[in-house]
This record gives sequence, structure tokens and C-alpha cells, in this order.
Amino acid sequence: MLADLALVGFGNVARRFVRLLDEQKPFLLSRDLTYRIVAISTRRHGAAFDPAGLDPLSAALTIDAGGSLGDRAADDGRSSNQRAIETLARSSSPLRVLIETTTLDIDAGQPAIEHVRSALQAGCHVATANKGPAAFAYDDLSRIARDRGLSFLFEGAVMDGVPIFNLVRDTLPAVEIAGFRGVVNSTTNHILTALEDGQEFAPALAEMQAAGIAEADASLDVDGWDAAAKAAALANVLLGARITPHDVERQGLGSDCARRARDAKSRGARLRLVASARRDEQASVRLEELPERDPLAGLRGMSNALVLDTNLLGEIAITQLHGGLTHTAYALLSDVIAIRSRC
Amino acid sequence: MLADLALVGFGNVARRFVRLLDEQKPFLLSRDLTYRIVAISTRRHGAAFDPAGLDPLSAALTIDAGGSLGDRAADDGRSSNQRAIETLARSSSPLRVLIETTTLDIDAGQPAIEHVRSALQAGCHVATANKGPAAFAYDDLSRIARDRGLSFLFEGAVMDGVPIFNLVRDTLPAVEIAGFRGVVNSTTNHILTALEDGQEFAPALAEMQAAGIAEADASLDVDGWDAAAKAAALANVLLGARITPHDVERQGLGSDCARRARDAKSRGARLRLVASARRDEQASVRLEELPERDPLAGLRGMSNALVLDTNLLGEIAITQLHGGLTHTAYALLSDVIAIRSRC
Repeated sequence: MLADLALVGFGNVARRFVRLLDEQKPFLLSRDLTYRIVAISTRRHGAAFDPAGLDPLSAALTIDAGGSLGDRAADDGRSSNQRAIETLARSSSPLRVLIETTTLDIDAGQPAIEHVRSALQAGCHVATANKGPAAFAYDDLSRIARDRGLSFLFEGAVMDGVPIFNLVRDTLPAVEIAGFRGVVNSTTNHILTALEDGQEFAPALAEMQAAGIAEADASLDVDGWDAAAKAAALANVLLGARITPHDVERQGLGSDCARRARDAKSRGARLRLVASARRDEQASVRLEELPERDPLAGLRGMSNALVLDTNLLGEIAITQLHGGLTHTAYALLSDVIAIRSRC
Repeated sequence: MLADLALVGFGNVARRFVRLLDEQKPFLLSRDLTYRIVAISTRRHGAAFDPAGLDPLSAALTIDAGGSLGDRAADDGRSSNQRAIETLARSSSPLRVLIETTTLDIDAGQPAIEHVRSALQAGCHVATANKGPAAFAYDDLSRIARDRGLSFLFEGAVMDGVPIFNLVRDTLPAVEIAGFRGVVNSTTNHILTALEDGQEFAPALAEMQAAGIAEADASLDVDGWDAAAKAAALANVLLGARITPHDVERQGLGSDCARRARDAKSRGARLRLVASARRDEQASVRLEELPERDPLAGLRGMSNALVLDTNLLGEIAITQLHGGLTHTAYALLSDVIAIRSRC
């Protein structure tokens, strides 16, 4: 089956994704899946549209080299993102998927939510690595998808490609999740680990920025907004909540976190930024001093983990020991494969 | 859809399973699944057969009270286990499932393997909590199942109901597993944790026996055989190996493990019984001194964990923080639901 894909957002993750697609062609064929990229829309480097299929590897090389895609001037008032979705919607392929990788807007989750909504309303499936849609509008978007028999998937929103949402949906039938606790932001965990080892805040943050993990404006990470968006997405999906990141009680690292991290370690404990929620409790992101035996205490550097409290299996933890671009790109790939397998 | 089930083995796990089935009737109905138990065969407490359906809760109460099921004398040379499978095979239900929960035989995995084979050859699906079939005969049995369009599932064989096999099969498409390392035996981990805390071996083992976790003959646990069977099952399924537990390089706790556990702790490390294998290395079960930062080092008591080394997601750990009868019974339930969802 031929899948037509439109890429809205063509940053590091999306460019790694098109390369991963290419690397995985034999596997995809084994699942009866071939693909065509019919649109690529970037924020600052133009856009390209071709219902007959673009060459995504060339486009990625162009952007890598600082160049621009050709179709920038073709804008007639609609954004190139809208044009990309329209190009996808007009395709005759039975399997049309929007790949949404714009950056998170913490005010309202836009324009990602509108991208997802437009695509679903036009009969296209959606795979997104953006936390916004699930963190701000899960109930609405998942209902639109369900009503139309479409998939709205976002495995990459939390812990990159490590299956969380797919795990609960596909491998834990009949299990109810009562709550979760997790370390879900790599930048702050790297900083806290460095601080407890006696290093300074600024160079630890700079390392994460140099690695492309933290944003240039690191406040999304450091002030706990990224973790709050993930907490909202997890609460909405796993606990049936109807919240946004602004409903999450939120702490950032704060000015005294270096002292607190060192003090905690001197007591045999660990200071960690913990995102949590329960069915009967407000979601929160808090700096917590965890005893060494806590499964979240041992997470160092960029490791992430999520502990699910379940009715039939007690507590289960899923830990991502390494992170990176390939992991997030893989999340999109696994979503596309899941969409194919449902057809 | 009506599923007919035959229970071969009716110990603690199977009795908890029939109660869990009853508790989960509303959920099963929501998946269009009802069930009937057409046969129950026990090792020492008789058997019962009725194509029109038995009352499994009454049967469980009878066995709990030390009683016996009625049909013991009806044996005509065939074992009651065989009769149970034949009763299932003659059912007209479109969905027939053998629930195999006999105890592990570490010599050759029998008679569980023959139960599984007979059921598959008669056109019945299989869900088993017994490690033997996957540890000794995965390649053979899975081929028979595949050729007939049947399922052979055994989620409970490792880490109870925490999804391992289902996780890799259903939520990690395109991911290759290069190897694994795990703490997969609860009894030995409880003992090692007690020893490093300065307690004695014998009472720690006795606690596990009193809790029904360790066998009366604890050598399967203490000598590493249980972990070796799990290592073989994991290697066969995840790494494409063709081994049995006897091919696994195996250590047990050994006479000096108390000293070694305390010494390790005094150095800030932890002694753990680690089951591991890689595509290019023999499977093994070894006492290893792990640095505190190792994700397996922090596991205390009955916690289990498995670290998967993957090509696209680096290392992922799945941790079971609690174990118990319900967890293993849930594994069988999740297998039955998976079988239903494939029909």
C-alpha cells in the first residue's frame, strides 16, 4: 500500500525521519508499505509541493547546508503549512498521513493543533512529535479522529520513541492507570545530575544547548514548561483528564537548586524534577528529594523514566537510558507503521 | 464472540485467572468476548469436562478447600490433560484456547510442550504461563502456530504480566534487539537484598517459600535454573536463538554469596543474579557485582527488570516493582485478549 506523507515542520527531527524512512524501506516493504512525500513545509526555509512525490533526501541536504526549498514564493495568502495539508488531502492515496513536527508553543499549542485538526477533517491520519496537540486538545482531536476512523498518534511527545502511549493502548488491555510519576525532561535532569556532582548550572545547560537538546531559550525546559506539557499529555491520555499545561502545578529548577541538589546527595537522596498526576490529584511538576531506593532517583543525565501505577500489575517503570534525534524520529516511524497496520 | 477455554493445570495461578476472568467480564464484553470453561485438569485433585461449560469459580473453591474435582475416575488410559485438550478441540466455538499452567520441568520442558503441540495441532490457540515451551521449543511451536494461523502466547513466562514479548512484537516495529540483561528471578533477588542488608540466607528463602513465590524445592530458583529458563525463552524469542536452558552458562547463588553481597555493598556496589544474552554471545546467568549506577543495581526485593539493547532506541529498561499471583494471572488474560483481537 502506498502512503502519501506531508511534512509540516522540517527541523532536525523531520530530517532524521526522512532518512530513517529511507533506511527502513526494506522493513516497510515487509509490512506492505511504500511511501511518497507530497509536501514539505519549513518555518524559515521555504516549502515544496508535488503530488507525484518529492525527493526528501535532497530536500534534507539542502536544508542541512543552509539552503532553501523552492516554493517559497508560491504563497497566495495561505500559509505553506496549510498548502502542505491541502496537497496531502487532494492525494488519491488510500493512506494519507500528516507528519507534524513544528515546535511547541506553550501558550496554546498552536499552530500545531490547527494543523492536526485540518488534516483529520480532510480525512488524513496524523503522526506528530509535538506535545501541544495532546497536551492542549487531546479530547477534541481524538474524538474527531475516532468519528472519521482515523488515527491521531503522538508517541514522540513523551520519552521520544520509547513506547508509552502505544504500550498502554496495545499491550495493557483491561489495565487501569491510577496515576504516574516520571522524570521526563532531559535538560533539567542533566543539569540536576551535574549540580549534585558539584558542577555549575551554566555550563551544564550550555552542554545541552550545544547538543541540540535544550532550546536556545531554555526557559521551556528550566522553568518546567516542557515537563508540564508532557504531564498534561499523559494525564489527558492515560487518566482521562481534560487539562492543559497551564493547569499543571509547576516548579522550575529555581535559584537554590544547586544547593538543594548537593544537600540531597549528601543525605543519600537525589533531587529530581518529577512530573506526576493521579486520577484524584492535580497534575504537578515539582522538584522532589527522592530516597535512593526510588526508581526515579537513580536516573542520571539524559535518562528519562515513567512509573505507571496500575490496578492489575502494581507499579511498572519504563526507562529510556539514552535519548537523541533518532529516537524521536523513530517515534514518528512507529506511528506510521501503527497507522498502516490498522488499515 | 464466544471463546471456549480448557485449563490444563489448576494451581494458584490458574485459580486466580478464572477469578480475574470473572471480575473482568464487563471489559471482555466491551471487546466482544464471552467465555466458557469446557475442561479443567489438575495434577492431584481430579479433573472435570463439560462441553456446555463448567463453573470455574466453584471448582476453584473446591480446590482451595482441599477437595477434588469429580471426573477423576473417568480416565481410560489417556491422561486428564489429554482429555481436556480433546474436549477443547471438539468444541464448535470459533475461538478455542488452551490455558496451560503446569509447573516447569527443567529437564526437557515436558509435558507442557506436548500440551501446547497437541492443542495447536488440533486447531486451538495457546496461552501459557509456563516457561518450558518457549525455553525449549519456541522455534518448533511457533512454526506450527504460524502455519495454522493460530497464536502461541506466553507473556507470563518472564516478569509475570508486565509486557515484554507483547511490547517487542506490538510496539517496537522495525527495532532490532541486539541483546538483553535482566534480573528476572524474584526469590534470588529477595535473598541477595536481604543478605546485603546483613540478614541470613535461610530465613530470607523461607519468607519466599511462605509467600508461595519460591518452590518447596527451591533449587530451581537458587541454582539459577528459573533464570536460565527465562534467559533461554528471551533469547529464542527476541534474538532468534535456538537454545534450551541447558545451553545457558549458569551460576546459582553459591555458598559464599552472603559474603560477596555484603562486600559489594561495602564498596557501593550491588551483587545481582543477571540473566543476559546477545546475538553474538552465549546466554548466561551470572552473579555480577554491579556499580550503583547500573539500572539493575537498584532493584530490591522482588522487583524484576529487563534492559533491552536496541538499534534504534538505545537501551530501554522495563521494571516490575511488585510481583504476585494477580500479575501472572493477568498475563494469561492479556494473552487471551490478544488472541481475540487477532480474530
